[in-house]
Amino acid sequence: MRILILGFGSVGQGFTKILPTRIDFLKKNYLIDPKVIGIVDSSGAAIDPKGLDLKLALKTKRKEGSISKYPKRGKRGLSGLDVLDAVDADVVIEVTPTNIVNGEPGLSHILKAMERGSHVVTSNKGPLALAFQKLADTAMKHGVQFRYNGTVGGATPIVSLAKRCLVGNTVLSARGILNSTSNYVLTKMTKEGITMKEALKIAYRMGIAEKDPTYDIDGIDTACKIVILANAIMSRNATYRDVGEIKGVRNVTVQDISKAKSKGFAIKLIGTVDGKRLRVRPENVPFSSPICVDGTLNSVILRTEFAKDITIIGKGAGPVETASTVLSDLIDILRIVGVRK
Amino acid sequence: MRILILGFGSVGQGFTKILPTRIDFLKKNYLIDPKVIGIVDSSGAAIDPKGLDLKLALKTKRKEGSISKYPKRGKRGLSGLDVLDAVDADVVIEVTPTNIVNGEPGLSHILKAMERGSHVVTSNKGPLALAFQKLADTAMKHGVQFRYNGTVGGATPIVSLAKRCLVGNTVLSARGILNSTSNYVLTKMTKEGITMKEALKIAYRMGIAEKDPTYDIDGIDTACKIVILANAIMSRNATYRDVGEIKGVRNVTVQDISKAKSKGFAIKLIGTVDGKRLRVRPENVPFSSPICVDGTLNSVILRTEFAKDITIIGKGAGPVETASTVLSDLIDILRIVGVRK
Repeated sequence: MRILILGFGSVGQGFTKILPTRIDFLKKNYLIDPKVIGIVDSSGAAIDPKGLDLKLALKTKRKEGSISKYPKRGKRGLSGLDVLDAVDADVVIEVTPTNIVNGEPGLSHILKAMERGSHVVTSNKGPLALAFQKLADTAMKHGVQFRYNGTVGGATPIVSLAKRCLVGNTVLSARGILNSTSNYVLTKMTKEGITMKEALKIAYRMGIAEKDPTYDIDGIDTACKIVILANAIMSRNATYRDVGEIKGVRNVTVQDISKAKSKGFAIKLIGTVDGKRLRVRPENVPFSSPICVDGTLNSVILRTEFAKDITIIGKGAGPVETASTVLSDLIDILRIVGVRK
Repeated sequence: MRILILGFGSVGQGFTKILPTRIDFLKKNYLIDPKVIGIVDSSGAAIDPKGLDLKLALKTKRKEGSISKYPKRGKRGLSGLDVLDAVDADVVIEVTPTNIVNGEPGLSHILKAMERGSHVVTSNKGPLALAFQKLADTAMKHGVQFRYNGTVGGATPIVSLAKRCLVGNTVLSARGILNSTSNYVLTKMTKEGITMKEALKIAYRMGIAEKDPTYDIDGIDTACKIVILANAIMSRNATYRDVGEIKGVRNVTVQDISKAKSKGFAIKLIGTVDGKRLRVRPENVPFSSPICVDGTLNSVILRTEFAKDITIIGKGAGPVETASTVLSDLIDILRIVGVRK
């Protein structure tokens, strides 16, 4: 099996680190010996149809700053689209950064990969928040598998829990904490009585918040995830524009939190999709609720037709954590495609 | 697709009720039109190769007490093994009651179904707690699919979460509340300060406890589930005899609970499987722990190699709830087998 990795940031590197730990499992269970025939980052690419040396790829990125410096096989200036033209990949792992304005370069990567007959796994929210239906239709048209568990919940497989494990049910609504940065900041404010600004500084130092935390704190990231859930598990043809309310936590004060706390509630940034609406806003959540989790945890409660409420809780981010979700998606594809061959 | 249902108690009837709600979904997604060609209960059976009328089957059971009274097609005295010989089923749904002494009649049902080339879905813990490896080997030998999510967690798909959604990870341990009756009783004692005996009486009146609650309260049911998890998600070749400690909650007093409560803990019946041991015992669980859930809820925390801790919470029992898990398993089989054909 020939794998092409587009994007060699934290998730791409995480995937490259953990893939070797599952090779014996893949050989034994699926008689498949995966090899990475190409890796692309923003400066260039390394290509080897016989399979790249993954340790060397990671070392090159770490020491030289770009995979394009990979000995002999590296080349500067090659883009993801160039490499998609140049190689035949069975599966494309699309893990470039999320771009919520136009979804690029991820959107073009995924569409081209599918058109060329490659299965696709992604953790990139942008393309799905903007063009879910187009991506699903393109996958269907070209008979390829498409998995995107890493886009919602990071390490926590919310989409596959709903779509696979609960397939005998209809999901009526999904509701929960879908952004680790804002949850970390709110937790710090709640536990230590510090301001949003102070909490954001700590989160930045810990590598949990970006320098500009707008995306996380203002609810944009959560809105993207709610759009993906609406499409993936509730068959709603929704895009980012359909989120009726997006209110972040930037204006939540220590006083708001204290007031809620005295009544048995925590303030959490909650994304909701149900029969009526898609919505993101800070809400009072009882401390006793299963979705009231702290720190960088994510949680979602799925209301189902027959199984009632199912809650899943786990790490919402982290390079190796999210990479393990990408790897699970890859193996799920093998499970379907492997038996077809 | 021809379905044979062995066992027509609460789960079998629940399955029969909800199957029709998914027929359009199955036709559309898998081009499959399922029909139930046989139903067996402890008194006899109804068989129709053209498909039984499910509403009539449910009505017959409710009014006459046995499916053997089904008009024209019902027959007294037929056993599950007789019917397995008499019909060709693509999938056998084995939902007879759990028997932890020798696994029968479920164990013989499942083995015979597999030998005859039928895929099997079960919610019956007995056969899996006693002979997991034999069942897995038999399924492998005859090239049939075997699903048993309903045996652990009822409505909560713990096994498939671990085996499917987290397949890129190794599960290092599983730990949680796996018995609804004991959790309901402990919750009542904690919230209302009543004794175990009083709480059991209420649970019995509510239909949550059996007249003889030994199986639930003494940890036997939890031990069975821990054995299944050890085999299914940690590849341990374990049977019921390998559970090193089985201590139930029968001797937990109101005083024990008050003492724990004052220190921020609830007493819960916890099943654990990790690298070292299989164990069931009452434990002090912090109220803030994600697995500290109340009432008839179940909860399991899966510790994984890369995704860290993933917790799932949901209803642990209930006829329609568990039936929906059986239906999800059935559809998962179609997903694999459907593409093979």
